[in-house]
Amino acid sequence: MVSAEIIAVGSELLTPEKSDTNSLWITDKLNLAGIEVVLKTIVGDDREKLSRVVSDALSRTDVVVVTGGLGPTEDDITREGVAVGVGRELVFRQDLLDELRERFKQFGYEMPETNRRQAYVIDGAEVLHNPNGSAPGMLLRSEGKLIGVLPGPPREMRPMFEKHVLPAAKELSGDIVVLRRSLRVNGLGESKLDEMIAPIYTKYTNPATSTLFSKTDIEIQFTARAESVEEADSLIETVSKEVCDVLGDAVYSTNGEDLEVVVGRMLNQKALTLALAESCTGGLIATRLTDVPGASGFLMEGLVTYSNGAKIRRLGVPESTIDAHGAVSSETAEAMASGARESSGVDVAVSVTGIAGPDGGTEDKPVGTVFVGLSDSRGTISKRFKLIGDREMIRWRSSQAALEILRRRLLEDEC
Amino acid sequence: MVSAEIIAVGSELLTPEKSDTNSLWITDKLNLAGIEVVLKTIVGDDREKLSRVVSDALSRTDVVVVTGGLGPTEDDITREGVAVGVGRELVFRQDLLDELRERFKQFGYEMPETNRRQAYVIDGAEVLHNPNGSAPGMLLRSEGKLIGVLPGPPREMRPMFEKHVLPAAKELSGDIVVLRRSLRVNGLGESKLDEMIAPIYTKYTNPATSTLFSKTDIEIQFTARAESVEEADSLIETVSKEVCDVLGDAVYSTNGEDLEVVVGRMLNQKALTLALAESCTGGLIATRLTDVPGASGFLMEGLVTYSNGAKIRRLGVPESTIDAHGAVSSETAEAMASGARESSGVDVAVSVTGIAGPDGGTEDKPVGTVFVGLSDSRGTISKRFKLIGDREMIRWRSSQAALEILRRRLLEDEC
Repeated sequence: MVSAEIIAVGSELLTPEKSDTNSLWITDKLNLAGIEVVLKTIVGDDREKLSRVVSDALSRTDVVVVTGGLGPTEDDITREGVAVGVGRELVFRQDLLDELRERFKQFGYEMPETNRRQAYVIDGAEVLHNPNGSAPGMLLRSEGKLIGVLPGPPREMRPMFEKHVLPAAKELSGDIVVLRRSLRVNGLGESKLDEMIAPIYTKYTNPATSTLFSKTDIEIQFTARAESVEEADSLIETVSKEVCDVLGDAVYSTNGEDLEVVVGRMLNQKALTLALAESCTGGLIATRLTDVPGASGFLMEGLVTYSNGAKIRRLGVPESTIDAHGAVSSETAEAMASGARESSGVDVAVSVTGIAGPDGGTEDKPVGTVFVGLSDSRGTISKRFKLIGDREMIRWRSSQAALEILRRRLLEDEC
Repeated sequence: MVSAEIIAVGSELLTPEKSDTNSLWITDKLNLAGIEVVLKTIVGDDREKLSRVVSDALSRTDVVVVTGGLGPTEDDITREGVAVGVGRELVFRQDLLDELRERFKQFGYEMPETNRRQAYVIDGAEVLHNPNGSAPGMLLRSEGKLIGVLPGPPREMRPMFEKHVLPAAKELSGDIVVLRRSLRVNGLGESKLDEMIAPIYTKYTNPATSTLFSKTDIEIQFTARAESVEEADSLIETVSKEVCDVLGDAVYSTNGEDLEVVVGRMLNQKALTLALAESCTGGLIATRLTDVPGASGFLMEGLVTYSNGAKIRRLGVPESTIDAHGAVSSETAEAMASGARESSGVDVAVSVTGIAGPDGGTEDKPVGTVFVGLSDSRGTISKRFKLIGDREMIRWRSSQAALEILRRRLLEDEC
């Protein structure tokens, strides 16, 4: 298998605030071309360190992609660093300088003398045109190895990588198709899930299966290598089907989609309208659903009834219910859901009330106690959850729980 | 200046989905101890590559921190890789094995034989107790260099780093205090801002000033090095004050706080109540404000009036206003704000209506056209914005614009 290393250049990538994200995008593209990324390095604006890193990478890897540090300032040391790393000279290119001057002229500026640096390229390199910036890229071949040098800003780097570096890398890897597809799963713990599906996926080496745990759900990822898309697809389909059979309804998406996308589509397909009554989630469910274009097709309104007054006034929750059971109770959750459904005139209403913390917990109802209510033509139900995490996590998990209850109800509908 | 390298181990960190985030947290801690991170490497579960990377790092750097790959499986190659990299043997420690067995017993399990691997440590290393997991860490000294080896999960790694690795690293860096403080700025472009403040911050080398541009605002970060906190603080105060004088009201926070935190505190301090009427932001403003503990002190309710029906029914927006000017108009934004204020009985109401895209734009009102309305005892105002970006970005920028209008109004109040 052809291997690659990615080197990101820039002292700002060594601060606590900024991480290299270009390499994730590049990895995705390389993986799908059948190339594995075996090492990543982040180096500052330091010519000597970069040249050492480049020569190390070349000594063990087939494809090396370097991003960043091609600007016009003193700090931009990638040209020199890579040149030393591959043992070649930098050469001045009058045609590149003319092009740069012309570019500046078009925007009504005179080219600052400092940009002259961008007219130097590594001897023998193919110069890569940058349609979105002033820094040209470079593509070098050295002893059967491939080195791509690209600017750091994603909108400059990405088209140059796709047009020049990726095709050259694909030539090395040959006619391999790599296909990836994901299942998303809700409501199962890590070890329980693995117990259920390990006997299936361990039977297959192609596709490879990996399981990713995010803050609220699980993604099961299949990656198949084959000679055609059809073949790769059918390899994945075989395992995916077996896994789906075992997991049943817990699988909410067979193509990697988010839960809000799945639920939104179900509502649209059934032509059902929705209203939300949120307390502790504070609008998060509405925000998630309206992140998806087309939410106006089903979401009539969302009510963030943070205060008791709003619960009473907007949703018609009886004051006596709150007094008797508390604002965080199944009774209030159900009254919120049915009140939202009636006052908005929708088909389904979902409510959430809970204690996201850090304060407000009691012995009876500690932080993380959350009630989800749902009201539709068949009646009103509620469910109690004990969620774990900090405020942000509890809010997120509450929103996930609410969307999942809605999804399950919409599934039942089909019976 | 003492330099450090960070090495993250794990094949999952070389996939398109996962990036190493431990190193950002570690960098922050090291920086504040006066130590600079000069290189980061991400390597897969590959013993030979890791040992090479470790020995390279030791050849050029004072402090090396290795995270991940200390688990009990075959894939966990960090113990062996680091041992080879520093040229030492692994030794078996019966006391560690006993401890591991005991740990499993406490949880009611028998220790799987595979966990024996975790009882091997590098010869001469100080063993670091892991209160939150089974993998012990290691601290090594070799030729004046320091090597910390820690498990990957943040909740295991962080306390072990702070308790063992950081104090040892601080000994190398001596009595230096590094202090960092940020200003957050709204409503100024990148070049305009730099034009205003570059003449100030370039006068000073200590603190160093850096400007970070995020999706909606600007953070001006000062980092001072001194012998005491007081001295560092006073160095920052001098520059910070000059910068604030020039930027005036555009600075919304002098300690790095988010806009919603600042606005929330202003409302609480003035004992003013707030209602929100959101259309295109779909609950995002409510979500941001309720992310902050204590939001129940001022936020009475939020209304996500996504449909025209909800705008009419919930907020009393006259149907004729929507018919005559459209749902995305200053007239509708103002009617939403005043309607929300009246029907909720609050002091201030803020509304947002706009076109977040990707569809719905017209020649007159292209995607990104957003109106923010505000209604309080002094009257009702609105402002039109033309925001740039994809759906998510336009929604975020709309929420930022609305919070900023509210902040400005609350500031005026003080005149």
